[in-house]
Amino acid sequence: MTLSNKTLSIFALGGINEIGKNMYVIQYADDIIIVDCGAKFPDESLLGIDLIIPDIDYLQENKEKIRALVVTHGHEDHIGGIPYFLKKLNVPIYATRFTLGLIELKLKEHKLFRTTELVQINSDSNLDFGEIAVSFFRTSHSIPDCLGIVFDTPEGKVVHTGDFKFDLTPMNDQYSDIHKMSEIGTQGVLLLISESTNAERPGSTPSEQLVGEHIEAAFMKAKRKIIISTFASNVNRIQQIVHATLKTNRKLALLGRSMVNVVSVAVERGYLDLPDGLLIESRDVKYLPPEDVVILCTGSQGEPLAVLSRLSTSNHREVKVLPDDTVIFAASPIPGNEKDVSRIVDSFFQMGAKVIYGSASKTGMHVSGHGYQEDLKLMLTLMKPKYFIPIHGEYRMLYLHRLLAESVGIEKDNTFIIKNGDVVDIENALARQTRKVPAGDTYVDGIGIGEVEDIVLRDRKQLSEDGMLVIVVTIIKTEGTLVYEPNTISRGFVYAKDSAELIRNVNDIVKTTVNESLDGSINKMKKKIKKSVGQYINTETKRKPMILPVIIEV
Amino acid sequence: MTLSNKTLSIFALGGINEIGKNMYVIQYADDIIIVDCGAKFPDESLLGIDLIIPDIDYLQENKEKIRALVVTHGHEDHIGGIPYFLKKLNVPIYATRFTLGLIELKLKEHKLFRTTELVQINSDSNLDFGEIAVSFFRTSHSIPDCLGIVFDTPEGKVVHTGDFKFDLTPMNDQYSDIHKMSEIGTQGVLLLISESTNAERPGSTPSEQLVGEHIEAAFMKAKRKIIISTFASNVNRIQQIVHATLKTNRKLALLGRSMVNVVSVAVERGYLDLPDGLLIESRDVKYLPPEDVVILCTGSQGEPLAVLSRLSTSNHREVKVLPDDTVIFAASPIPGNEKDVSRIVDSFFQMGAKVIYGSASKTGMHVSGHGYQEDLKLMLTLMKPKYFIPIHGEYRMLYLHRLLAESVGIEKDNTFIIKNGDVVDIENALARQTRKVPAGDTYVDGIGIGEVEDIVLRDRKQLSEDGMLVIVVTIIKTEGTLVYEPNTISRGFVYAKDSAELIRNVNDIVKTTVNESLDGSINKMKKKIKKSVGQYINTETKRKPMILPVIIEV
Repeated sequence: MTLSNKTLSIFALGGINEIGKNMYVIQYADDIIIVDCGAKFPDESLLGIDLIIPDIDYLQENKEKIRALVVTHGHEDHIGGIPYFLKKLNVPIYATRFTLGLIELKLKEHKLFRTTELVQINSDSNLDFGEIAVSFFRTSHSIPDCLGIVFDTPEGKVVHTGDFKFDLTPMNDQYSDIHKMSEIGTQGVLLLISESTNAERPGSTPSEQLVGEHIEAAFMKAKRKIIISTFASNVNRIQQIVHATLKTNRKLALLGRSMVNVVSVAVERGYLDLPDGLLIESRDVKYLPPEDVVILCTGSQGEPLAVLSRLSTSNHREVKVLPDDTVIFAASPIPGNEKDVSRIVDSFFQMGAKVIYGSASKTGMHVSGHGYQEDLKLMLTLMKPKYFIPIHGEYRMLYLHRLLAESVGIEKDNTFIIKNGDVVDIENALARQTRKVPAGDTYVDGIGIGEVEDIVLRDRKQLSEDGMLVIVVTIIKTEGTLVYEPNTISRGFVYAKDSAELIRNVNDIVKTTVNESLDGSINKMKKKIKKSVGQYINTETKRKPMILPVIIEV
Repeated sequence: MTLSNKTLSIFALGGINEIGKNMYVIQYADDIIIVDCGAKFPDESLLGIDLIIPDIDYLQENKEKIRALVVTHGHEDHIGGIPYFLKKLNVPIYATRFTLGLIELKLKEHKLFRTTELVQINSDSNLDFGEIAVSFFRTSHSIPDCLGIVFDTPEGKVVHTGDFKFDLTPMNDQYSDIHKMSEIGTQGVLLLISESTNAERPGSTPSEQLVGEHIEAAFMKAKRKIIISTFASNVNRIQQIVHATLKTNRKLALLGRSMVNVVSVAVERGYLDLPDGLLIESRDVKYLPPEDVVILCTGSQGEPLAVLSRLSTSNHREVKVLPDDTVIFAASPIPGNEKDVSRIVDSFFQMGAKVIYGSASKTGMHVSGHGYQEDLKLMLTLMKPKYFIPIHGEYRMLYLHRLLAESVGIEKDNTFIIKNGDVVDIENALARQTRKVPAGDTYVDGIGIGEVEDIVLRDRKQLSEDGMLVIVVTIIKTEGTLVYEPNTISRGFVYAKDSAELIRNVNDIVKTTVNESLDGSINKMKKKIKKSVGQYINTETKRKPMILPVIIEV
């Protein structure tokens, strides 16, 4: 298609067909606004990769048009990519006070704080970026200070929900601004972009208040120390833990770097009310009677290096879990983490602790921050958009979200189920999806960004499964050709001490192969060694280690 | 303790604190009977390991005492270790007709069929092994022909439940023999050994019949092809799929090697009723109208190489999934497989299929084969044992199973929560747990059994995360010392083409290091190279590849 200068374009650089690395782009003519810049954790097939962030080729090619990065809230899948993004593009960042606090922690860690323009906004802010005016509305979620965004463009209003649920009894005043949403809907919405995480779940998301009641009940029953773990960013849940601690006349110790960091941001900025004298240092836990202590820590997802995991293996310097202590998992395992969490639950059981965890407990120590089907339908009904793009979900969630949209009256053909990189262009109130921009995964490994190639990952996979054999052959050509005894080194394949015979046979095969191919090229010789040794090894062991011949000619 | 020749000893070599590789041992004086010989699949931390089987050192040391391997049922976690076990110990195997059919498949594959003594038994069999008499009772589970075992010893009766639930309306006559269990209980049980898989789940396990009703309802609604996947060993569920196929006037194609194998064993041996003319070859699917076809296949756990996964990526030669086909997952994901299953569900959604799967469906296409809390309590009540050992579960399940035992009147101190290798000795009706036998994981990698050492796994882990650098240095000492230009090869670390400068710098560092350490030993030189290169690489890339210096002296 030919694009006129009056086209409104919307696309995702991350967040579609995945939970993670959210990044959305709104462009009208020469003005680009970016929403969120998240990261995603790799699954186990991406060996050695630390983090995945969006491919931002399109943005780098159009950098003079970028007006702002607007951030809906402070979860990793919405802010985790920011430091890597800023290393390539210096763009002003707009976010609420609490979200900015979390972003600042990241920027300081990456030494980017001084060079970045940070602009604090709130739900009443109105911003102008060229032909796009931007305003906001408050939403409830599992972190404070969340925003939905309204883009007023010459084509009409585009609404991006951010992450949300409708919690009518939230903690700490974190209400959804339903009246403002309703007003926006009344003014007319051209396009709604709404999150789909829980589109598979019928009903409405339970209120965070429910968790508070269950936490309090568990605290009342606990006889000795209480160890409770939740997401550090779930400040409202932490507030309820603080309330239960006060109510049971205990003191609170914070364990884990991110817990300490986020709580201090939340207190400083007024999102968490921590009465004086409540906190104690973790090193003082041992001086207090166990019935006077609550330990709030990180690691509810079973992360092997986090505090909860270390407590479960008695590997924490200052705190020990003892029989009849109560351990509470105030978070559900994220898909993929179930086994790690079970392992820790089991360890605490073995230590004699009373463990309150996921499936077995009817006591509900966790509710989701994402709206279930009725919440999603309410948003669709409030906004009554002409067009709809479901985002923030795997394919089946987007698909089911479209069915929900149909059920409340959005025309089926007006919902666009896109992929990362698919562009929806709207001109004269008519939307079409015909073109693509580059999009994909960029890998962060150590401090390298995007420099781990597929071939490196393929090598790591082979190395991880069957290890390798390095075969060094020295050929001396000074006075007649002399082939030295090959030197075969095995790593990750078999322990050489146990396999002397195997290695001897490999060396014999190599010698024969080398002698037979002395007149060919070095490359041919290497290929022949790989082939003959590979066949032998596979017959003997059914394994396929990487075989790496090194030929030294002197 | 000193053991008299009148001690009854019970222990597990696998199956405790894990779901998998079940193996239990009953010994009285000089008679040993083994129950089951299972395998377990490794988790992703065991890089390249194919299978885990029990450590059988104790049995090898006492092989002249072994009278029999008795097998409760044909699931992999109960028979998967048999071929590897037989390679070390030739022991007669006792199992029911269907279980033997599955064992025979394995033995033929491993060329062990002719050399193994297989004895067919049924729930009415009575066997005598020295001072131990063995009899059986039928149980319901998710595979046909399951047994519980009664060991009549001079000390009293020991009952091993095998895997079970109480299904009062099972398919194909696979009833639990409640009256016989009741009679055994009336005669007096010294020790009950009972499975704990679902000890976390309140209530009773639903009947398999429920699944049949839901499958039929889904088949009635389906407009085009039906693709349904379940465990090949769940013959009763397959029988219900056959019924629904007949009822909707469709033909049935079987896809996947294990599905074809197990169905043919089940039909041959009379456990599955397949009317003539119902089956079609998979290559004929394309000639039939889609509304006339059901495809029953393997891969419900998202296994990447199984049929269902290949169908989801359009990689099957004979069958294509098309829009409006119905895809049914008639199995829940086993913990750890959730992400693989979601990926396939998503692909089918993207292909436009109607997908009926886990959490979203209220239609219940799966019920567990393991008893919930009420089933476990019923078994404990029927057997009313003096002593109790919960088995077949992770620690929390064993712990909760003990609470269930207490609730129906078993004394708390009479329940032994053991580990693999912990021995419970009973003499004069008094049980004590004081000693241990060797127990642990034996790794199968390719055709090697037990020869993958920890150090090999550690190497694989390092290789998988950051790859490696092989650095070859050639030193010629014939006429004065001459150090050749080092040759650095990287695999799984960085793609060498992109990192020419990095590799050049490494070579420079190596040359300097070698020249500085020419008078020391080769080992010292290697250590210095590892250190200097390691530091440089870590500073530049924050990665820690394996560094493997090879020094060639000519």
